[in-house]
Amino acid sequence: MAEGLIVLGLDPGTRVTGYGVVRELSGKAELVATGTIRTPVKKDMATRMGVIFSQLQELIRAHAPAEAAIENVFVSKNPSSALKLGQARGACMAACAVNNIPMGEYEPSKVKKNLVGVGNAPKSQVAYMVAHCLGIKKPDWPEDASDALAIAICHLNERRMRKLTCS
Amino acid sequence: MAEGLIVLGLDPGTRVTGYGVVRELSGKAELVATGTIRTPVKKDMATRMGVIFSQLQELIRAHAPAEAAIENVFVSKNPSSALKLGQARGACMAACAVNNIPMGEYEPSKVKKNLVGVGNAPKSQVAYMVAHCLGIKKPDWPEDASDALAIAICHLNERRMRKLTCS
Repeated sequence: MAEGLIVLGLDPGTRVTGYGVVRELSGKAELVATGTIRTPVKKDMATRMGVIFSQLQELIRAHAPAEAAIENVFVSKNPSSALKLGQARGACMAACAVNNIPMGEYEPSKVKKNLVGVGNAPKSQVAYMVAHCLGIKKPDWPEDASDALAIAICHLNERRMRKLTCS
Repeated sequence: MAEGLIVLGLDPGTRVTGYGVVRELSGKAELVATGTIRTPVKKDMATRMGVIFSQLQELIRAHAPAEAAIENVFVSKNPSSALKLGQARGACMAACAVNNIPMGEYEPSKVKKNLVGVGNAPKSQVAYMVAHCLGIKKPDWPEDASDALAIAICHLNERRMRKLTCS
């Protein structure tokens, strides 16, 4: 594992899907790439899901992540929002699965607890810890990208903890 | 259009996704292929969405549909079911979109009205009309496949009507 483990974190949405690619090197998390995939809002839903899938394919080709991670949402919203969110998740999941990238799922409270120490931490505190973990003083990424990075970092931490417990 | 228009109808689900490939030849609908994609229930959701995507890729490669159609669900179920259904829809949509297959969306009542004449027709009546339209006396396909065929036939009919109205 000379080059470190690369993890792709995803925060799916039909309009904006945040992504964060993080590499673990010598026990430290390092930023590889982050940003958002924006779908053309005037196009039909199928076209937009195709955009998410295709852009993820590009990202996977470019960074070759070994694992992926996504938030495991328990939606309290209305069924219509849940259906839409599900569609974006389905496109993300398919893109990772067809590239044989195993995907971890974490509840939002788990991600918060992992990074900040408490399950109900405010978003700003999570964003602060994301930047801190990656050693970036002035983060310039949008919120969706930050959320995706948080999930990737959570996955790396959980993975390391599982390893420690098992060894 | 010597070989006729081929349409792929889809009835997505995380466990079972029905598909129906129908060709329109000289104004008649003809069955090309139908069946179900079953996902491995013991695997994680991402893997299952990958199965749906990959098997649809195979179907698209084999039958080269020019257009696709899917039910436009307005879920009355709980948000958790909606999220799951959305995921399967997202995988289906992505598979069609990355293959540049435009997708029509139809409400369930529209599909029923199109085939049977009434928007609240029972499933059995829709299934009967599907077999009748395709000229099959003893249909041997499962319900999910029949639903997918209904959507494909509805799309062909709607398409033809739009054409008649416009010409």
